Amino acid sequence: MEGDKRDLADLLKEGGYHSDIPEILHKLSLPVKKRVCALKKVQLDSIEIEAKFYERVHQLEKEFETEFNKLYEQRRKIVTGEYEPTDEESKLPIIHTADEEELKALNDKSEPDDGSKGIPSFWLHVLKASDMTQDMIQDHDEPILKHLTDITTTIEVDPHGFTIYFHFSPNEYFTNTVLKKQYFLEIKPDAEDPFSFDGPSVVRAIGDTIQWNEGKNITKKVVKKKLKKGSNAGKFISKTVKADSFFNFFDTIVPPTEDHKNEDDDDDDSHDLMRADFEIGQVLRDNIIPRAVLFFTGEADMGDDMFDMGEDDGEDEEEDDEYDE
Amino acid sequence: MEGDKRDLADLLKEGGYHSDIPEILHKLSLPVKKRVCALKKVQLDSIEIEAKFYERVHQLEKEFETEFNKLYEQRRKIVTGEYEPTDEESKLPIIHTADEEELKALNDKSEPDDGSKGIPSFWLHVLKASDMTQDMIQDHDEPILKHLTDITTTIEVDPHGFTIYFHFSPNEYFTNTVLKKQYFLEIKPDAEDPFSFDGPSVVRAIGDTIQWNEGKNITKKVVKKKLKKGSNAGKFISKTVKADSFFNFFDTIVPPTEDHKNEDDDDDDSHDLMRADFEIGQVLRDNIIPRAVLFFTGEADMGDDMFDMGEDDGEDEEEDDEYDE
Repeated sequence: MEGDKRDLADLLKEGGYHSDIPEILHKLSLPVKKRVCALKKVQLDSIEIEAKFYERVHQLEKEFETEFNKLYEQRRKIVTGEYEPTDEESKLPIIHTADEEELKALNDKSEPDDGSKGIPSFWLHVLKASDMTQDMIQDHDEPILKHLTDITTTIEVDPHGFTIYFHFSPNEYFTNTVLKKQYFLEIKPDAEDPFSFDGPSVVRAIGDTIQWNEGKNITKKVVKKKLKKGSNAGKFISKTVKADSFFNFFDTIVPPTEDHKNEDDDDDDSHDLMRADFEIGQVLRDNIIPRAVLFFTGEADMGDDMFDMGEDDGEDEEEDDEYDE
Repeated sequence: MEGDKRDLADLLKEGGYHSDIPEILHKLSLPVKKRVCALKKVQLDSIEIEAKFYERVHQLEKEFETEFNKLYEQRRKIVTGEYEPTDEESKLPIIHTADEEELKALNDKSEPDDGSKGIPSFWLHVLKASDMTQDMIQDHDEPILKHLTDITTTIEVDPHGFTIYFHFSPNEYFTNTVLKKQYFLEIKPDAEDPFSFDGPSVVRAIGDTIQWNEGKNITKKVVKKKLKKGSNAGKFISKTVKADSFFNFFDTIVPPTEDHKNEDDDDDDSHDLMRADFEIGQVLRDNIIPRAVLFFTGEADMGDDMFDMGEDDGEDEEEDDEYDE
């Protein structure tokens, strides 16, 4: 046993584990290492204060909720046709950067008024205009999403979180009038891994159960399978499986437990799926709901600015200039 | 003229300009278009509230400044050797996830104590461990950055902004003891382009002038050039040009004016450079200063989590399963 330990220590010395530990950290003298350990304690205290800061930001968001929701309610009334805006209220150009000519051209293409109320299929088009949600929408989802009259959100303080509500007009697909998805946030650092704290993170998401009408559940499909083994080999059976659909968004997402982790090889997949789901919730809340009309008009940034960041490293190439005095 | 206009309108109808305007927007009837214009007004009101929210977050950051700076001051004392931490204060492991064996292996590699105070070259190693700053550091910068004893930051409320201070021990390179860079933030939406508002953005950065000692200015170098044109063609001249250096970070960065934009082909480059500079300031403030020791130990995330996001789109491949009953 003693021998085993020594071998392991030798392995570690070669940088076998934790190869991401900087070489300079190994070489530090013991007194210097001790001082670095003391800095870790200071870091932990700093992370605790950071958590308090984010808690206050969350409270601030709650404080602003009423003011934002008043405006979103105005939007809902215009979208559903409950309120007809005046000329005065409609004088901003439909595209901010368009000039007179362009606006005229845009108007020239208009189809005749068919008497529709509000802005038909507004939210379907908004969801199709966002990078984050467009791939979630299948052809069979579209007729259902035409009934989507509003997407709203509330902030919860105890426990921390937010909820996204999808409001539907009466339809033939399901009996729910609202489908909600609740996101639970952890604002404190994780006890197991406090140093990775970087602000609030979604830890769990609970979706509503959709009350599909008979034969309308598009999230399931029946597939025929040929049995390959056993006494029934060669025969076909039918099985109901999950189908791609926007409405799978209302699935409940919980992080895999430790037990589950050990028995399931698809753990990485389920982790990715979880992260994608959490990110969709955050984008809906932070971007799509507050900027819906800009997605509708195509003016919202499709991607994150960060991803467009130029790779210019600031090198000065003046040396290659020609001289001419 | 009338004919010209019609041609232009036709061109626009073909989607010549604003090709990013969604096709469905063109086709909407005029009453529906009018309602979308009314939503733009509601959006503008919502953006005004958002600006007020961000203003409050900035105030909140100011409010927390003292609490954070108290801890950063503790860090400075340990880093410079002004304070020697006790055993009790140093009991956290140097690497959070390391086990006994790994810590032992790490300690076994330690070099003998040479009596150095504090943590030598702490900030140089921190800056070399961050993706954002490592490429800025040239070989000739390192001996100077060994004199960096602290990086601190303050928040300014009127006008909005933040300042980053680099503190140096007395050295042979320059006479400044502090080099600062001030960042100015715009928290209100831009009057010209209000719909692009997405929170505070840096609009200007002012760096300190470095008082280099004679012959020590590493940000300039002399190059020899062969004249290609004119009566002196073929002769060599010397010219002083900018050299790559971390210390170019103390350049002042102002956005190009409209006049400048028209006369300068390098405008995109200067825009990229400006964005990169602003981003470095923000990463220093939000990430490197608050988490310095985690960069030093290699535990800080080098990249942004967003970039690692799995591309799993949640497709269910159950259909390919084999049956065996």
